[in-house]
Amino acid sequence: MPLRNRLPFYEPYSDDQISAIENHADRILDEVGVEFRGDEEALELFRGAGARVDGERVRFEPGLAAHLCSTAPSRFEMHGRDGRTLPIGGDNVAFLPAYGSPFVTDLDQGRRYATLADFENIVKMTYSTPWLHHSGGTVCEPVDVPVNKRHLDMVYAHLRWSTKPFMGAVTAPERAEDSIAMARMVFGAEFLGDHCVIQGNINVNSPLVWDDVMSGALKAYARANQGCVISPFIIGGAMGPVTIPALVAQAHAEAMTGIALSQLVRPGSPMVYGNFLTTMNLRSGAPTFGTAESTLATYAVGQLARRLGLPLRCGAHYTASKIADGQAMTESVDSMSAGILAGTNYVIHAAGWLEGGLTFGYEKFAMDLDRCAMLHKQLGGITVDDEQLGMDAYLEAGPGGNYLACGHTMRHYATANHESSLADTNSFEQWTDDGALDIAQRANRQWKQMLAEYEPPPICEAVDRELLAFIDDRRKAAPDAWY
Amino acid sequence: MPLRNRLPFYEPYSDDQISAIENHADRILDEVGVEFRGDEEALELFRGAGARVDGERVRFEPGLAAHLCSTAPSRFEMHGRDGRTLPIGGDNVAFLPAYGSPFVTDLDQGRRYATLADFENIVKMTYSTPWLHHSGGTVCEPVDVPVNKRHLDMVYAHLRWSTKPFMGAVTAPERAEDSIAMARMVFGAEFLGDHCVIQGNINVNSPLVWDDVMSGALKAYARANQGCVISPFIIGGAMGPVTIPALVAQAHAEAMTGIALSQLVRPGSPMVYGNFLTTMNLRSGAPTFGTAESTLATYAVGQLARRLGLPLRCGAHYTASKIADGQAMTESVDSMSAGILAGTNYVIHAAGWLEGGLTFGYEKFAMDLDRCAMLHKQLGGITVDDEQLGMDAYLEAGPGGNYLACGHTMRHYATANHESSLADTNSFEQWTDDGALDIAQRANRQWKQMLAEYEPPPICEAVDRELLAFIDDRRKAAPDAWY
Repeated sequence: MPLRNRLPFYEPYSDDQISAIENHADRILDEVGVEFRGDEEALELFRGAGARVDGERVRFEPGLAAHLCSTAPSRFEMHGRDGRTLPIGGDNVAFLPAYGSPFVTDLDQGRRYATLADFENIVKMTYSTPWLHHSGGTVCEPVDVPVNKRHLDMVYAHLRWSTKPFMGAVTAPERAEDSIAMARMVFGAEFLGDHCVIQGNINVNSPLVWDDVMSGALKAYARANQGCVISPFIIGGAMGPVTIPALVAQAHAEAMTGIALSQLVRPGSPMVYGNFLTTMNLRSGAPTFGTAESTLATYAVGQLARRLGLPLRCGAHYTASKIADGQAMTESVDSMSAGILAGTNYVIHAAGWLEGGLTFGYEKFAMDLDRCAMLHKQLGGITVDDEQLGMDAYLEAGPGGNYLACGHTMRHYATANHESSLADTNSFEQWTDDGALDIAQRANRQWKQMLAEYEPPPICEAVDRELLAFIDDRRKAAPDAWY
Repeated sequence: MPLRNRLPFYEPYSDDQISAIENHADRILDEVGVEFRGDEEALELFRGAGARVDGERVRFEPGLAAHLCSTAPSRFEMHGRDGRTLPIGGDNVAFLPAYGSPFVTDLDQGRRYATLADFENIVKMTYSTPWLHHSGGTVCEPVDVPVNKRHLDMVYAHLRWSTKPFMGAVTAPERAEDSIAMARMVFGAEFLGDHCVIQGNINVNSPLVWDDVMSGALKAYARANQGCVISPFIIGGAMGPVTIPALVAQAHAEAMTGIALSQLVRPGSPMVYGNFLTTMNLRSGAPTFGTAESTLATYAVGQLARRLGLPLRCGAHYTASKIADGQAMTESVDSMSAGILAGTNYVIHAAGWLEGGLTFGYEKFAMDLDRCAMLHKQLGGITVDDEQLGMDAYLEAGPGGNYLACGHTMRHYATANHESSLADTNSFEQWTDDGALDIAQRANRQWKQMLAEYEPPPICEAVDRELLAFIDDRRKAAPDAWY
């Protein structure tokens, strides 16, 4: 069920401040420009659109990049193979699992390389939970499968073990094409031609560089009228300046160039204005998450996205912690809350992220899901009417009375409060009797139960055979590559 | 150093919604009223002010309670014995340690009854840290000291081992008087007469009841022109209705009656509009924290406080967890963030709270302090100017360049990012080499270091002798009472 955010966005910065950041982004694009490396087609498209192309460097007059983004829809729908739709943009919020971890960890086996079995587990748990709306993409990196064939197994897992919208490969343009081809087998060529069923998660090679792998994948999805999430990945002080306004302006400039390219390839193709901005420890160079600075940057990104009129990706349950401890949840809650307040529409890494993205945590996944569930209640806001004000309750209970048994409480008992599935609110004595478990230990039981109770969605046998035959052909067509 | 919140408050509800809640609070006070039990003086004062007094029940015409609050200052200063001032109200934020726990816990000794030694430890750590601005009150309950003499040791500890503003006793009017008398010895009668140096933490006996202990303590502080924090303590569904608008309206009604009484005793005495609103597990009756509903209620409280023009107490690092785990920090971050966004001015329980307030956690204290430190940076907001936009950085680094060594980064290196003192951002390998500690284990080292490095502030010897003589007299004047 889609999640709508009925609370107003938090917009702490003045129009003057946001305009200054927009103007600065325009100045970066005009005076420095962006490089599209090894992509003649992109350079040609930009030249034709009025940008100044000098070698691989592309420079834009102020206002041109935003103008080129204007054909991208402010809102669109993704389609699952069960016929359900997921709205992206406006006041809608989609939560996705973590993306890209080469390691997984759990309390039983500890940290280890991720495998295709882990990948399938994450797809299955994501399918089962009502708190994630999208199956994600590279939910972990299945390192037991050859690099050049991994995308086939990943896309198959999303299509076979889930019905939720998903992301395909971006690690090579031809792998993006394979992903789209497999989606076409399930959805049909006609339907896919004008409905978004698959996306690519496109990172800019910040600062201010597009490599041909990313621009190639982006063009493949756009050409098929499918979607992309365009996310500059900037650690302030390394791939961009260390100050917040400068960091945000660079991200804005970079995101606009990717969206502009998508619109030159296929006007109207559905894009998400994304970002992955974070900070680093300036002594060690390590990335840091849920920091004051990343929160302040995230608020700005929300205001910029809405002025551009595009769906926004930001926020996540991010952390640098290696385990699902207090650090993990402090950083995760802060970074997700910043995104929610900023008005995020699309949250990659809503569940399972640990260690700056290097590790997917099974317990962390369950803990993050529990908080996603809570947010479903919170974002519903409040209703102020006579029934919610409940005058009869005071008249019945009176001063010093107990409200537990009064009629108003009885009427609202079942729906008033969201109940966490993992928080322990028992007495110390009861908690001790229950084994004095911390929340990660309780989460360990929960994800195992999710997997035990998973039931695969049906799939048309002919389609399944076609998918498997396609994968088989592709596997035979090239030798395995492991790097 | 005082903390100012330079970010705008988050006000998600419409004027119509807030007006409806205000009107409902007025209706509660008019149609149901509030009981002042065993306090003839309070009843007489309210009668004289135009309220309808029927036995111990006091009813207010719509608008009367708010009108009686109008002489309370919208902003005031508290004074420490080192001459520093702490502004309360406006865009200022004061963080205080936890309050009232009969138990303490740490990783070495586990959970046990709190003692005076624990109390002194907490006062000393609170004095040492720059992230708490106020020494708090009953920072834990020293159960090794007789109940009727405990306040003497507690007030002495605040006055002797700290210089920060503090809270005195409220468990009996005469103990409040003792607390004020001791403060008078340190600050002088004349200074104390027109400067706020001590406060009482006053809970309403919700629903809609004031007992003579609380109203007596409130009157004692107000009479001395000292401050109080007036906090209805309402668990929705038990001491008030289970729906959010009704819960908030009741809290508003109750807080106004306490502030009204203070102003009838001494117009202009400095009060804080407080609340402690939370939810419960509707199956077990256990209090719950950091929930969707408590966040939504907190936002409303902020809007109500500003319309009344009074300093606001709300938010805290609350949790029901028994230990400093992921649950503790999820709930704590959510409940503190709600208060910060709502525009809190005064945060009791900013550090150390566990188990719904039953336990003070030493490790939790250090972890909460680390987050308070981060909030100091976050609430400073951003500046958008040429230097922060840093055009020279892009021109120097260019597309694909590294910003680590560029001049702009060098200029901002030292101040750009706040660094957590507890978060581990190292590699998995380094973290493993360091013992694979979770954040609570790192916090264990930190609070011990804080205590080891504590240096007591100087005190005038004559004043110290006077305090000790006063305590000695009071101790001899009555037999020990243990309940």
